[in-house]
Amino acid sequence: MPSNTFGQIFAVTTFGESHGPAIGCVIDGCPPGIAIAAEDFAHDLARRATGRTRHTSARHEADAVEILSGVYEGRSTGTPIALLIRNTDARSRDYAKIAGQFRPGHADYTYWQKYGIRDPRGGGRASARETTMRVAAAVIAKKWLAEKHGVAIHGCMTQIGDVTPRAIDRARLDVADIDWNVVEANPFFWPVAAQVAELEAYMDALRKSGDSVGARIEVVATGVPPGWGEPIYGKLDAELAGALMSINAVKGVEIGDGFAAVAQKGSEHRDAMTPQGFASNHAGGILGGIASGQAIRCSVAFKPTSSLRLPVAGVDVRGDAVEVVTTGRHDPCVGIRATPICEAMVALVLMDQALRHRAQCGDVGEVVPRVGSAI
Amino acid sequence: MPSNTFGQIFAVTTFGESHGPAIGCVIDGCPPGIAIAAEDFAHDLARRATGRTRHTSARHEADAVEILSGVYEGRSTGTPIALLIRNTDARSRDYAKIAGQFRPGHADYTYWQKYGIRDPRGGGRASARETTMRVAAAVIAKKWLAEKHGVAIHGCMTQIGDVTPRAIDRARLDVADIDWNVVEANPFFWPVAAQVAELEAYMDALRKSGDSVGARIEVVATGVPPGWGEPIYGKLDAELAGALMSINAVKGVEIGDGFAAVAQKGSEHRDAMTPQGFASNHAGGILGGIASGQAIRCSVAFKPTSSLRLPVAGVDVRGDAVEVVTTGRHDPCVGIRATPICEAMVALVLMDQALRHRAQCGDVGEVVPRVGSAI
Amino acid sequence: MPSNTFGQIFAVTTFGESHGPAIGCVIDGCPPGIAIAAEDFAHDLARRATGRTRHTSARHEADAVEILSGVYEGRSTGTPIALLIRNTDARSRDYAKIAGQFRPGHADYTYWQKYGIRDPRGGGRASARETTMRVAAAVIAKKWLAEKHGVAIHGCMTQIGDVTPRAIDRARLDVADIDWNVVEANPFFWPVAAQVAELEAYMDALRKSGDSVGARIEVVATGVPPGWGEPIYGKLDAELAGALMSINAVKGVEIGDGFAAVAQKGSEHRDAMTPQGFASNHAGGILGGIASGQAIRCSVAFKPTSSLRLPVAGVDVRGDAVEVVTTGRHDPCVGIRATPICEAMVALVLMDQALRHRAQCGDVGEVVPRVGSAI
Amino acid sequence: MPSNTFGQIFAVTTFGESHGPAIGCVIDGCPPGIAIAAEDFAHDLARRATGRTRHTSARHEADAVEILSGVYEGRSTGTPIALLIRNTDARSRDYAKIAGQFRPGHADYTYWQKYGIRDPRGGGRASARETTMRVAAAVIAKKWLAEKHGVAIHGCMTQIGDVTPRAIDRARLDVADIDWNVVEANPFFWPVAAQVAELEAYMDALRKSGDSVGARIEVVATGVPPGWGEPIYGKLDAELAGALMSINAVKGVEIGDGFAAVAQKGSEHRDAMTPQGFASNHAGGILGGIASGQAIRCSVAFKPTSSLRLPVAGVDVRGDAVEVVTTGRHDPCVGIRATPICEAMVALVLMDQALRHRAQCGDVGEVVPRVGSAI
Repeated sequence: MPSNTFGQIFAVTTFGESHGPAIGCVIDGCPPGIAIAAEDFAHDLARRATGRTRHTSARHEADAVEILSGVYEGRSTGTPIALLIRNTDARSRDYAKIAGQFRPGHADYTYWQKYGIRDPRGGGRASARETTMRVAAAVIAKKWLAEKHGVAIHGCMTQIGDVTPRAIDRARLDVADIDWNVVEANPFFWPVAAQVAELEAYMDALRKSGDSVGARIEVVATGVPPGWGEPIYGKLDAELAGALMSINAVKGVEIGDGFAAVAQKGSEHRDAMTPQGFASNHAGGILGGIASGQAIRCSVAFKPTSSLRLPVAGVDVRGDAVEVVTTGRHDPCVGIRATPICEAMVALVLMDQALRHRAQCGDVGEVVPRVGSAI
Repeated sequence: MPSNTFGQIFAVTTFGESHGPAIGCVIDGCPPGIAIAAEDFAHDLARRATGRTRHTSARHEADAVEILSGVYEGRSTGTPIALLIRNTDARSRDYAKIAGQFRPGHADYTYWQKYGIRDPRGGGRASARETTMRVAAAVIAKKWLAEKHGVAIHGCMTQIGDVTPRAIDRARLDVADIDWNVVEANPFFWPVAAQVAELEAYMDALRKSGDSVGARIEVVATGVPPGWGEPIYGKLDAELAGALMSINAVKGVEIGDGFAAVAQKGSEHRDAMTPQGFASNHAGGILGGIASGQAIRCSVAFKPTSSLRLPVAGVDVRGDAVEVVTTGRHDPCVGIRATPICEAMVALVLMDQALRHRAQCGDVGEVVPRVGSAI
Repeated sequence: MPSNTFGQIFAVTTFGESHGPAIGCVIDGCPPGIAIAAEDFAHDLARRATGRTRHTSARHEADAVEILSGVYEGRSTGTPIALLIRNTDARSRDYAKIAGQFRPGHADYTYWQKYGIRDPRGGGRASARETTMRVAAAVIAKKWLAEKHGVAIHGCMTQIGDVTPRAIDRARLDVADIDWNVVEANPFFWPVAAQVAELEAYMDALRKSGDSVGARIEVVATGVPPGWGEPIYGKLDAELAGALMSINAVKGVEIGDGFAAVAQKGSEHRDAMTPQGFASNHAGGILGGIASGQAIRCSVAFKPTSSLRLPVAGVDVRGDAVEVVTTGRHDPCVGIRATPICEAMVALVLMDQALRHRAQCGDVGEVVPRVGSAI
Repeated sequence: MPSNTFGQIFAVTTFGESHGPAIGCVIDGCPPGIAIAAEDFAHDLARRATGRTRHTSARHEADAVEILSGVYEGRSTGTPIALLIRNTDARSRDYAKIAGQFRPGHADYTYWQKYGIRDPRGGGRASARETTMRVAAAVIAKKWLAEKHGVAIHGCMTQIGDVTPRAIDRARLDVADIDWNVVEANPFFWPVAAQVAELEAYMDALRKSGDSVGARIEVVATGVPPGWGEPIYGKLDAELAGALMSINAVKGVEIGDGFAAVAQKGSEHRDAMTPQGFASNHAGGILGGIASGQAIRCSVAFKPTSSLRLPVAGVDVRGDAVEVVTTGRHDPCVGIRATPICEAMVALVLMDQALRHRAQCGDVGEVVPRVGSAI
């Protein structure tokens, strides 16, 4: 699989640099007959966009999607759907002075080592601008998953720096606990409305200090039919982990209880089953790589932004020591805009696995007994 | 990519059930000319095997590898290398009584929902027996990586239940801190010799209680050349996360500082660079999905074994409530044998990425400047 | 896709050398619930085998299939099906003297150039022995295609050297013209019973002369539902061409009228349509890469065997000129046993395309109008 | 592999419909450092274009390529190269009246059966317009192959209808026989200058009659190093056959002597070897799926265009009988413009195989003995 393509059946190929003329994607293998319009992409792209509040980078992109192919009279035809977004607010001068430097914590040095050449404008291909097309492609996946199977995918932030949601005990976090309207009503995708003002102040102080922090994002997918997923290397949780880790700045992924499971006893972790459904969901909705029908829970760690106006020791392209200071437009916490990106990757994995499941097991039908999915 | 194949160039396809006649693998895309003998597999297979101490399952398998193809006069020829291991100690009677039940915490129910049929003997394909062939295939990868590139891959256990290595501060854990001879000299792959007797007592008490615990495994790869890896979806860290999460019972994966990065400041996390090398390694040796030349650090969470003689509420194949008690041979902590399996997956990812890097960038040559890899 | 794996969903990985201990395959992605027994493979393996008549190589292999995994209580479980056949009649001494030579017309020289090493015993991996596992894997595909969709795949020989079927005008050859019982009743898979004695004499004379001839094989698949196949690079005819050309000794592939279409007029070639069905089948059942519901017709050219006791100028591994004479067991016409191999590749392509079609278009349902498939 | 992506390492994904807003491609896995400018595409796109002479469709497209990504300061960076061409001369009104009909010989009916929906404007995705991007992507492949390895790829027409090159005996056709300047100097890519006026008259008469004819294209690649290619399913000839058969209207593919090999004797077909090189090239430069170092020869059959103003019996979308007459702009022989398309597919196969060879065998080095490549 080429490195810029995601998925085997519902295969999304993305392209474009931060400060190039455009970014875009090609979605191959899309089921035919799905209603698709350019306006469909606006909502999730706006959730991901910079420049909407003072807490994200000041770059303003219209993110206007042009559908170049694969849609006829408002419906997908089954042929490749190409989406194009022109970059309109690229300011390459911001980066000119660091073209000759390797910024610590960035991919500058590693791209240089791999390719012997790099596009330094705004981080080039390694910029988070690339995630725009993940979100765009996932709009179609989310739509199909919801309409055909009733799958809903929601994400929120559950930690920023050392701040965690008050009155939310993470061990109990599940779809029933969170009011997604609250999450969508604040710029942090934070699940506790009463805490938002405090977060605003926290971020203002951070921005003033010139520093940045990391974040934890939680994504929950409900309605996933039992049976989706695959054994061994194509496990549903393995693909979720790979997909989420492929997002810029991600350093860790958990499914279900994640690292907390290390200290648990087996008698506590294993989720008892009854004819009415599972009694708990430590597993996070996946057993043996295959969905159990419970809510699928993923938790993702984002590192703090490395681009700071605080100086750091670096190296230039001649190998000499330099002091690196970044003055361009940057997010003080990349995790703030990460929620729709994480949702997107979960949607892309589920969409592809759904189609692959249908390929191999499309004639298995609904298997009984199917227990309830109480939790 | 079929679900039971791992890797794109160095592609390992595994097969076999826990209690079937045999397990095996086919390794396609192996570079020609590598010296390979049946004895080469013995060391790592023994490290992974059950039945060596009282702390793992009592199943005794000879794990004798037969090389069926791809090796001529002791050298790989470039054609598929097939390895076969006959199962010799399968006791299917142990599982007969639970053939009609779905064991909580296991893949019984989800395989049933996916396929409408399952092999209940010893967990069938979902058994950890499958990981034997991952370890076998990785023996060849480790050899090539070491001989051609000086890459060394070591793993150890850094948590079992709520016990952590004494006098080892995890934030400082790197290759220089660990004596791998100590790790190899105890049944837990534990890095602190003085603590082993305590762990033995801990495990004895646990086994007596009929319960199980989880574990954390750390894997370190040194000597990886800067430039290996790929951008976007094929990122080196994304593939490591997917590969490690594909191991049975894994619930979380971290690269570098992992979830600790959430609470870090950017000024703390980003690793400063000097002409002599990086000043720290919070990133875990990967930036933008591509190796930086530093040590690659992965941390993996294993859940506690679900098979216990303590009863749990379950459901049978007719959908009726049952009490499930497991009396077969099981590991009280699957993480104890997980170290060589985690090492194997890291080796398979690195091997495949090395060959893919050579495919696209084989004429780039060594790029200067290349900073030292002090840390 | 690794080079020794065929198919994306129904993925067959084969291994093994002509004179190694065994050959085998792993079939991943097989739909669950298919009845499979070791005896099922006997019929097609016997059709492909050497040593059944004096017109093929004298090598006698039992071709006894052992099912190593993926089948439980006689049904496929959806996990990898591994099949193993031990080589029992390898006589490597036959090849010892040419281990240091490159046989003209064989892969000796090219494997040497690619890998820098080769297994010279019986041609190693490049031997037609490898096709045994294609036939074995296709037994399962043929079964599923027939049972689920009523697809039937038949092949026959339509030319050997300069001999063509008497009274059969190739342009009119379609499923209605051929009595498959006749084809199966003679060692050449020849469609005209009256001509078999003549062919026997022809082959006896050829064998006596020490020379060999080529052959043309025709394969017809009926019952393929309209809609299977894909556009652009994954076209059904493109995959058939690739699959058939991948068989040892194949030099040409035609779909429908093939090269005869070059001299045709458009008014002659295009197949008129009526509500009752197509009026002709010049296209060979595929339009735009997608099945039309008509019979799919493929024609395949096999070159004459290169291994002859007649001497030929060659080169040895030191680069010196040598005279090459081959005295081992060889087929005077590899095309004689090629019919089941060609059928197998058609079956593998159709099986994989059927599952891929279900993946993307599984909810399209049966599309009207569907014209009859009169021809 | 998604159906609209070609290649595993050098992976080309194309998109776009005949009468949609644009066509384009994304090239992933391209080696870094290749000089690429928008002008580079003009030459081969013009060779493929319609509207240059009266012998092809009257559609006039500027085919202006915009490079959207992957090129920085005139060099490939190793990240995806996206190319975009706006459609500027689409006249969908030409097709409006047949939107409700299935044109015999076209993909209308089969797309309808597959997807339950189709874009009828100009054939939609099934139009030969799609091949534009194959040619564009191959410009980069040809450049790399020529610069790094001295590979040259040339094609010409060797049959149109029942006309064959005078004084050129096809069995002797090889690179030494053809003056490529002659081929490039006439609109038919015909190798015999003296015959061009006759062909012009032949085509004028054909166009006047309202009918069409097929064509045969021959492609020759010289300078391919011995060792490129793969065994078994990824054979170089298998991939060439699949790639060439994936071009619209292709019905047959031959490698080397192709179908003529059926009637040959082994003593005639096998190419003798001497220290100075091969004595003949019946094989077409490939043995066992791997390049021998000789010229690679492919021959491709194109069917006659199905779109004619001569009426034909057809069916409409309600299943009723209709008379189909096509009055839009069409090629009386699609094969006339096919030469650069065939060259392109050969280039894409060779490029991808070259990179895959380097992945697995990059440290094998040049293997001796390497015989000359006299023929």
